[in-house]
Amino acid sequence: MCQLLGMNCNVPTDIVFSFTGFATRGGRTDVHHDGWGIAFFEGAGVRHFVDHAAAVASPVADLIKRWPIKSKNVIAHIRKATQGRIALENCHPFVRELWGRYWVFAHNGDLKDFKPELNGAFQPVGNTDSEMAFCYLLQEMRRRFGGTPPGLPELTSALRELTGAIAAHGAFNMMLSDGSALFAHCSTNLHYIVRKHPFATAKLSDEDMTVDFSQVTTPNDRVAVIVTAPLTDNETWTQFGQGEMKVFVEGEPVAL
Amino acid sequence: MCQLLGMNCNVPTDIVFSFTGFATRGGRTDVHHDGWGIAFFEGAGVRHFVDHAAAVASPVADLIKRWPIKSKNVIAHIRKATQGRIALENCHPFVRELWGRYWVFAHNGDLKDFKPELNGAFQPVGNTDSEMAFCYLLQEMRRRFGGTPPGLPELTSALRELTGAIAAHGAFNMMLSDGSALFAHCSTNLHYIVRKHPFATAKLSDEDMTVDFSQVTTPNDRVAVIVTAPLTDNETWTQFGQGEMKVFVEGEPVAL
Repeated sequence: MCQLLGMNCNVPTDIVFSFTGFATRGGRTDVHHDGWGIAFFEGAGVRHFVDHAAAVASPVADLIKRWPIKSKNVIAHIRKATQGRIALENCHPFVRELWGRYWVFAHNGDLKDFKPELNGAFQPVGNTDSEMAFCYLLQEMRRRFGGTPPGLPELTSALRELTGAIAAHGAFNMMLSDGSALFAHCSTNLHYIVRKHPFATAKLSDEDMTVDFSQVTTPNDRVAVIVTAPLTDNETWTQFGQGEMKVFVEGEPVAL
Repeated sequence: MCQLLGMNCNVPTDIVFSFTGFATRGGRTDVHHDGWGIAFFEGAGVRHFVDHAAAVASPVADLIKRWPIKSKNVIAHIRKATQGRIALENCHPFVRELWGRYWVFAHNGDLKDFKPELNGAFQPVGNTDSEMAFCYLLQEMRRRFGGTPPGLPELTSALRELTGAIAAHGAFNMMLSDGSALFAHCSTNLHYIVRKHPFATAKLSDEDMTVDFSQVTTPNDRVAVIVTAPLTDNETWTQFGQGEMKVFVEGEPVAL
């Protein structure tokens, strides 16, 4: 199994604090040493970093921990290989284009007997069940809505149906974003927190690191962090229900 | 206008020497300060770095200069904006998937009245003529060959025709790679060199830096470097003809 980290905000925010705790699980406090990756939306563009070295030993992970890239939507992943060999093409997150937007996807879980019919519009480059699921999602999104992206309620409804169908094959904890919304589906383990005014101090569980968010934010900032297992031990995280998909926009879950 | 750098080798090779000279043109010895990018194939996977900061001021460019990533196919680009604002989504190289492989593309030049009909299979995310040309190339490749990639001779023949047609709209110096071959089309300016046994010492034109390749290679290594303007001043570079497209495989141009 792997671990997922996502961030959705109403102003571009850096993820240095959360990523530092998360990356520590990639080979030091946990067993996820078969690669890692992170993607940051910046406007319509994406900065995409993947590495098949363990996150704790990766020069790129080191750069990310020192360089406060600001983004409204981030998805990160550390990998413990279950399907697919340890190789760059099998590292999440994956990035593809649909409707003139980039889509970023990462998955934690293990799908059994998942062999969807792919029409060739989106084909996996590597050999993971995860990239297969991503290609299938994008194919079905285009099949349902054609060349024009639907509104968020219609898209959410379609994704609930599609993720539910995929999850019938096994654990399908996943995050998907087009840079405006972040969709998170939970099969087994996913937690989130919304940080907003009044901001407090947070302490990482995996590293001896504390940050006083009131010093680095304005009262209007709102940041949702979604992760496999809570990153801090002095805040209250909300656990997703099994089979639940939430949609985060501008730093909070929206009812759709 | 922009500048292009490509490398195609028969063994994974690092591009630190060439990239160091090339990146210096991104804001110091030349005017290309509107972003830069580089993509490295590693097996079927791609490491993709883009930044809208000048290459000389970019923390990622600094990492690339210090970290010897080994690859058989690399494409890099430094940008002087002609079309499209300075933004991450407009930085080359661009990466898309076709036939279950990643394709990497970068362009130098300026296309006028280039408005190809796009069927939606590949849509630009940014607003450059370059990304439009890339989407059009991939669309036409799929239209001609369907879901199965053709052999290299057939693909080369199709690309000669397509790049020629695009070049009718203006300067279209471009590089395209799927990780096995590197296609380079010249409208105005492109040079290449093949380094092989017996290796000699090379001296950068843009930086006070010298490397003795005989110390860092084996006699079987072969490396083709393709670039807008020669990077070294003590080697003989071959200039492409106007309208010429060359295909590099395993470190040398092949006759197709």
